[in-house]
Amino acid sequence: MSSYSPSIEKLIESFERLPSIGHKTAIRLAFHMLDMKQEETDEFIKSITEAKKKLKYCSICFNIADTDPCPICSNPKRDQSTICVVEDVRDIMAMERTHEYKGVYHVLHGTISPMNGIGPDEIKIKELLNRIRDNDIKEVIIATNPRVEGEATSIYLSKLIKAFNIKVTRIAHGIPVGGDLEYTDEITLMKAMEGRREI
Amino acid sequence: MSSYSPSIEKLIESFERLPSIGHKTAIRLAFHMLDMKQEETDEFIKSITEAKKKLKYCSICFNIADTDPCPICSNPKRDQSTICVVEDVRDIMAMERTHEYKGVYHVLHGTISPMNGIGPDEIKIKELLNRIRDNDIKEVIIATNPRVEGEATSIYLSKLIKAFNIKVTRIAHGIPVGGDLEYTDEITLMKAMEGRREI
Repeated sequence: MSSYSPSIEKLIESFERLPSIGHKTAIRLAFHMLDMKQEETDEFIKSITEAKKKLKYCSICFNIADTDPCPICSNPKRDQSTICVVEDVRDIMAMERTHEYKGVYHVLHGTISPMNGIGPDEIKIKELLNRIRDNDIKEVIIATNPRVEGEATSIYLSKLIKAFNIKVTRIAHGIPVGGDLEYTDEITLMKAMEGRREI
Repeated sequence: MSSYSPSIEKLIESFERLPSIGHKTAIRLAFHMLDMKQEETDEFIKSITEAKKKLKYCSICFNIADTDPCPICSNPKRDQSTICVVEDVRDIMAMERTHEYKGVYHVLHGTISPMNGIGPDEIKIKELLNRIRDNDIKEVIIATNPRVEGEATSIYLSKLIKAFNIKVTRIAHGIPVGGDLEYTDEITLMKAMEGRREI
């Protein structure tokens, strides 16, 4: 039994339910909320409600944005014939930070994962295939994460997409820049060897 | 420059402003908020607004509670003549978890810390002295944290309280239960030696 007041108790529980927040951090955040000025709390709450209200999924690529289509899909400077397939909206942001890729995206919102009961119909694969069928697509780059589920999804997708006679590529796996051979796991090292190029 | 939508950007910033939340955790929390069902978000927001609205400082001990006086100060079973002085509301909760202490509390809401511009008037010392003057107090236990500021505050307080001819005690410092002599810092070890008792 805890000795906090019911309202504090409830606030702590609310924070505890969030990902990567443990009990002690939840207590810290709850008391920080209580210490915050009313205007600050109001602003915090507003940022949540506004985001929830304004943000929607792009009906083309399933990115989350303030507009539909999203700024990337509606940008005439982007190459609409190259689609980079990612698992998550956050992966788009990571990709965009490189300032190199000029094509568009498709967010699967997950990976095929039979262990977790997620089949091909649970993620945006049908939508991707329709998009490839209905548009003039030249290349599909599969950028799912190099984990078991990401690899399985990649293999599954590549088979389906090749049926459209379209170039399908997979992002390279290897040792991260600045990484250390000694501390690289054997799978990555193997992939790095497989992906070697002439210099 | 980031490539998130303005509303997401704002939400991430809101989370980043909270203590012990770094940039990556803020992103994670922001996206979690977007993924949450509307009812869940509403409940989260309600827990904040309710806590902010209901909670107040106890006018006797400066604990935070749904009622004033707080449940401890208004409990006739507690010994109102023994005051345990703590730095923070959270310290009360830690103390209460022992289920041993039957007196009441006084929350200073800080420690004297000239380095941070916090003098005796910035914390609830005047209120403590008035409380001692106006009530029949038998013992004041100073339970500020065993750090430089906590010690300084303790010494400062003990001098003032002794003027009332009241027993002033300090909680014991020593090796934590389950602790290891080898890994105990020398100050704690010194305090543990000083505080030794006959067995």
